[in-house]
Amino acid sequence: MHEFEWIAHYFAPLTHGRSEALGLKDDAALLQIPDGMQLVITTDTLNAGVHFLADAPAQFIAHKALAVNVSDLAAMGASPLAYNLALSLPKDINEPWLGAFCAGLLELQKETAIFLLGGDTTYSQGPLSITITAFGCVEKGTALLRSGAQAGDRLYTTGTIGDGYLGLLSAQREWGISDVEKRYYSPSPRVAVGKALSGIATSCMDISDGLLQDAGHIAQASGMALIIHAPEIPLSHSAQQLLAMHPIALTDLLAGGDDYELLFTASPQRKAEISEIAVATGVAIHEIGEVTKGAHVALLDSNGQPIRYERGGWQHF
Amino acid sequence: MHEFEWIAHYFAPLTHGRSEALGLKDDAALLQIPDGMQLVITTDTLNAGVHFLADAPAQFIAHKALAVNVSDLAAMGASPLAYNLALSLPKDINEPWLGAFCAGLLELQKETAIFLLGGDTTYSQGPLSITITAFGCVEKGTALLRSGAQAGDRLYTTGTIGDGYLGLLSAQREWGISDVEKRYYSPSPRVAVGKALSGIATSCMDISDGLLQDAGHIAQASGMALIIHAPEIPLSHSAQQLLAMHPIALTDLLAGGDDYELLFTASPQRKAEISEIAVATGVAIHEIGEVTKGAHVALLDSNGQPIRYERGGWQHF
Repeated sequence: MHEFEWIAHYFAPLTHGRSEALGLKDDAALLQIPDGMQLVITTDTLNAGVHFLADAPAQFIAHKALAVNVSDLAAMGASPLAYNLALSLPKDINEPWLGAFCAGLLELQKETAIFLLGGDTTYSQGPLSITITAFGCVEKGTALLRSGAQAGDRLYTTGTIGDGYLGLLSAQREWGISDVEKRYYSPSPRVAVGKALSGIATSCMDISDGLLQDAGHIAQASGMALIIHAPEIPLSHSAQQLLAMHPIALTDLLAGGDDYELLFTASPQRKAEISEIAVATGVAIHEIGEVTKGAHVALLDSNGQPIRYERGGWQHF
Repeated sequence: MHEFEWIAHYFAPLTHGRSEALGLKDDAALLQIPDGMQLVITTDTLNAGVHFLADAPAQFIAHKALAVNVSDLAAMGASPLAYNLALSLPKDINEPWLGAFCAGLLELQKETAIFLLGGDTTYSQGPLSITITAFGCVEKGTALLRSGAQAGDRLYTTGTIGDGYLGLLSAQREWGISDVEKRYYSPSPRVAVGKALSGIATSCMDISDGLLQDAGHIAQASGMALIIHAPEIPLSHSAQQLLAMHPIALTDLLAGGDDYELLFTASPQRKAEISEIAVATGVAIHEIGEVTKGAHVALLDSNGQPIRYERGGWQHF
């Protein structure tokens, strides 16, 4: 098959027949944004051997590539709309691989009501590279930003922290801990929580580079300090067991990245509403700290003493 | 420098201070589309060693990566708005390279009034890879599509054909023919022509894969045949000289790609308006054939006899 046949066979079904995609047959796609809405646009690249294990199943790679982008939409409180896919393929990619890859995309499309709008498929002399640009929309002026945290606000996180990092270790070291591996390979973007936080959270972002580093981004963007109470950080049952069994420090989990949970701040007066959002979405939300004046991130132990850590999170270079 | 310093130092100035980019500091960007407009979205990837010579100057690579995307916007008759840049960088990329790369982007930004909206910068174990997703806008329902060519329409192209292909040959074989090399490295997207053709062209696309193959896309999308008169195809002075000096066939130029001219169809009644567009934009427009019933592309010589050719254009795989 040539490129145009691949597009027709594998990619066109991912458009769900939406006219905006023009059948993936034109120079560009056409997207209509409802009046009064803003478009939310994010781009994330995943490269083999850097952002995922090169021998990972195609379905997982695809799911993750789309999920990390949808997670950025969720962090802005946006409703996912569509995405463009740029796929740079090594020569040895075959059709079964491509079929599995598209199945992984379709899986997350069903969960999030997002569809393929366009993109580019190219040959690469290097390893597999996937760049997705995802589009969502918010009512004008309601996007959740990283800036906006106020002194006195409480700091919250969804779900549990560190499972993505432990999932990577489990896959690399063949521990076979399936629930954390699933968290690493198939993160669940917190779209419903993000949308519900509109008008409630004062700042929000998704945790992709590690809780500590990403907390630093909110601190920096808001011009505030974030105090995190280590004992309050939610850990999964598997994470607690693995911490007990292996020489892994809690700070490794907090710097490990790949959580794709939402980290947000809100006034203490919104506590009841936040509890209601957790119930309504079925996603746990934990208060893990607070916002104070300053310009730093402090991680405190159960005695309120600072825990020192060297590495805040994933370094992109 | 780490990623965040690179972003602040090299990429943030490319946003032109536009608030939509949120200083390149948030999870996503926010774009507002004026009421009654549609967003035009295109994605093109360029990989080192496939789409450009790996040792090409960074400034040229950047210019081309953005130009091929803006050319797709031009082909839809859109006004360029903004773009997202995904850059996968090998370890040996240094700051002078990045500075030159950003200078190349800025050069085309000045020409086209487009600005950087967001993106992702990652490390790659492979060669340099650049994916740009570009955004433009058109009044609702006025985008130029590949479909729409009617029997009796005339076929037109802007500029000259084959210079991009000859520019690549010149660079590879060190002929030193600077005007065709400039066409290869720094194509000029035909934005003004594309916008002016709205309401006049019945179909339009940009020539990226070669005139013959791209004519086939219009033929296929429109369910028509395209008849191209070889002697009418506009060639630059350099192209005419190179064809005379080297064993290069005209059909090589027509299959060579990298022209980034517009190929479009229009009713013969619009001839005067098309001449006016050429004058107003300073871009030559030549009638090179016509649309008939059928489903093929025919290239005819000066006696009206079909010219046979093996390869229609660039194969992506």
